[in-house]
Amino acid sequence: MVHRGQELTVAEGTHRHDHGGRHTHEHVADGCSVPASARTVAEQLAAVLAAVAPLPPALVSLDEALGLVLAEDIRSATDTPPFDNSAMDGYAVRRADLLGATEQTPVSLPVVADLAAGTAQNPRLETGQVARIMTGAPIPDGADAVVPIEDTDQGTQTVQVMRPPGPAAHIRRAGEDAHAGDTVLTRGSELWPTRIAAAASAGTSGLRAHPAPRVAVISTGSELVTPGEPTRRGQIPDSNSYLLAAAVAEAGGVPIRLGAVPDDENTLRSLLTSLAGTVDAIVLSGGVSVGAYDVVKAVLAPLGTVRFGPVKMQPGKPQGFGRWPADADGTDGPVIFALPGNPVSAFVSFEAFVRPALRRMGGHSELFRPTVDAVAAESWASPAGRAQYMPVMLRRDGTRTLARRAAAGGSGSHLVAGLGQAQGLAIVPEDVTRIDEGGPVTVMLVT
Amino acid sequence: MVHRGQELTVAEGTHRHDHGGRHTHEHVADGCSVPASARTVAEQLAAVLAAVAPLPPALVSLDEALGLVLAEDIRSATDTPPFDNSAMDGYAVRRADLLGATEQTPVSLPVVADLAAGTAQNPRLETGQVARIMTGAPIPDGADAVVPIEDTDQGTQTVQVMRPPGPAAHIRRAGEDAHAGDTVLTRGSELWPTRIAAAASAGTSGLRAHPAPRVAVISTGSELVTPGEPTRRGQIPDSNSYLLAAAVAEAGGVPIRLGAVPDDENTLRSLLTSLAGTVDAIVLSGGVSVGAYDVVKAVLAPLGTVRFGPVKMQPGKPQGFGRWPADADGTDGPVIFALPGNPVSAFVSFEAFVRPALRRMGGHSELFRPTVDAVAAESWASPAGRAQYMPVMLRRDGTRTLARRAAAGGSGSHLVAGLGQAQGLAIVPEDVTRIDEGGPVTVMLVT
Repeated sequence: MVHRGQELTVAEGTHRHDHGGRHTHEHVADGCSVPASARTVAEQLAAVLAAVAPLPPALVSLDEALGLVLAEDIRSATDTPPFDNSAMDGYAVRRADLLGATEQTPVSLPVVADLAAGTAQNPRLETGQVARIMTGAPIPDGADAVVPIEDTDQGTQTVQVMRPPGPAAHIRRAGEDAHAGDTVLTRGSELWPTRIAAAASAGTSGLRAHPAPRVAVISTGSELVTPGEPTRRGQIPDSNSYLLAAAVAEAGGVPIRLGAVPDDENTLRSLLTSLAGTVDAIVLSGGVSVGAYDVVKAVLAPLGTVRFGPVKMQPGKPQGFGRWPADADGTDGPVIFALPGNPVSAFVSFEAFVRPALRRMGGHSELFRPTVDAVAAESWASPAGRAQYMPVMLRRDGTRTLARRAAAGGSGSHLVAGLGQAQGLAIVPEDVTRIDEGGPVTVMLVT
Repeated sequence: MVHRGQELTVAEGTHRHDHGGRHTHEHVADGCSVPASARTVAEQLAAVLAAVAPLPPALVSLDEALGLVLAEDIRSATDTPPFDNSAMDGYAVRRADLLGATEQTPVSLPVVADLAAGTAQNPRLETGQVARIMTGAPIPDGADAVVPIEDTDQGTQTVQVMRPPGPAAHIRRAGEDAHAGDTVLTRGSELWPTRIAAAASAGTSGLRAHPAPRVAVISTGSELVTPGEPTRRGQIPDSNSYLLAAAVAEAGGVPIRLGAVPDDENTLRSLLTSLAGTVDAIVLSGGVSVGAYDVVKAVLAPLGTVRFGPVKMQPGKPQGFGRWPADADGTDGPVIFALPGNPVSAFVSFEAFVRPALRRMGGHSELFRPTVDAVAAESWASPAGRAQYMPVMLRRDGTRTLARRAAAGGSGSHLVAGLGQAQGLAIVPEDVTRIDEGGPVTVMLVT
């Protein structure tokens, strides 16, 4: 069973085993400690969501609207359809003229007009007259039914009708779909194709929607080179800027992938300064830990507007969130997510915090990925005191969905090749230390 | 329960009621007839899928790759990671030097190097020496473990270590994620964010993928005006070109929305001629029926490469499929879908036939929308001999998913405003004539 649109935090995970343990400064399996100041995933998510709001509405054309969220109600400019019209190719008739028609005793009547779709003609039908009419053409005054072409000899001067129409047969009434002024789409609706069509049909050429957030994506680290360029000892290809830019696009944002910058404070500070006012959010990766060259922390922590601290999760523990300082005129700076540098950590943190925030900025009411109740296909351990986000592959097994770890190394935070096979993230609550083969596990679907 | 990646045709619908009826030319509820030459949905789908193939692979950059399908295996250019490196900020050490360290009796050792991420340095550690090392920096020769910074006094000339590391602690081994030459992504994989990251990490700057199909979208009908422009009697806003262009984008194609053309054969023929060689597919709506001005049929039927005929479905019965004629040099013309003009019919036909074809052209192995087993929240009728595609709204009710018709008028083919509320299409098999309140119904999810 897939659960859509629900907030899943570790506090809501299935089958929690409350050991009553205190984890305020306990050393856990991988040697990391959890300081008392650490936030839970739920606390970090709450802080992130409290800091963002839907972006101010902008006017967008229907051609740009797919996936955006309406910031206004759309009302029909006219009745829809705007006039009584034919639902069939055939003949507009006065039904009383044809009551006795049969195949053996057809009724023959003069065709006084030929009404194509788009015509403005409105020839009044008198008793005994018919008009040829095409689908969508306006029903002429006097007509009260349409005879489909199949029930006639298709005559153009006179027509033989073999079957009487029912009352008001094949007439689509003005306003049948919507009346002028009716609300056809409500504020907050996500603009999927049929809704864009409804706006068009209502006579709308452009609409006010929350724009897709523009998101700068920057990797940090002097070890990073552009993929495909030669690497010497100590260097690796930048993968995070590609990962996170694609994830931004997939979340409905507009990524501006700025690639990798070295561990140099002035370079990073200049770049961030140049972005203020041009983007809605900045997603950084790397440089958030306790090392001597943690450039993101070095540049952002002194501002006082970005909080760095551990989150009780694995992977993804150290990270930062806040804003670039406001302009002199008080305009908010872009939201800043400072994610861990390890690709799996960066991805997990994106899914846990950045994606919901971008969805909220885009005006979406459904912020969260769907989850499934799966069955663990193998056992694995999870650290006490931290929620684990384990990349898993999913496989259907009858009515069950089986979850198996996507990489032999489990949630090892650098196993990017294995991560590419993961369709979901198994979410193991803080106080659960072991997933048992055959036992339940909640999986956030990420593909 | 959601079913993903399965082909759903009406022959596979749930709870079929075989009445043994013959429907070769039976008049059904709405007065339409089903000629013996009509194809079932499954037959039409089979014909469509047999006529399309994955587009020839093209080289695309990683920035353009999201959602495309790989047309080659991606192998790691080097070991990943390419060298042993530190998983923590700390000190690279020779473990034997530290076996007795405790908080009370720390071991003090000289720091002979400072290894930042990205460094090419490789200072050989002799017995009793350590190097400060940051996450991702290469492990120097002679070191066999990393002590996290938290277990030290963080000294830069000499360092006091309070805890001995475990064997090979915090060392990420070269090739741990992938060895040089290992396949990290296989041909046929859809490029989601983590896979793009895996390609980057493998040292790939561009990859061969099936391009997104380029699809021209054209509405036909002299009654159509651009939405927002004033309408006189007989005119309505074009909504189909917006509907179908957005649906193409949502299906992973690149829409080229050309708007509406009037019911004029020369205009349409010129436009279609100009498109040959520039697009992979053309989606037309309107002009496919039996009327006097059915321009699409008039232009395409004589070519002999586009078949027009009824499909046993409601709505969407009359439609055409084929190709623009091949060039003089034998190059195939674009695939042509001639859909009905009514918006709901056009949408249903797009979902049933165009979307699976575009997915195949894009190289996807999963061509079909997911379906859910829902419970009908109300009763409705369905025509004998035709599969019904009923737009429905879905609502969770405990473990059940309830399906209710999205518009009072049901599957009335012009109810575009109601269609905008539909999250799915209930698929009622050909030989089922009634859906009962509380009974099962299979729903294709379209949002």
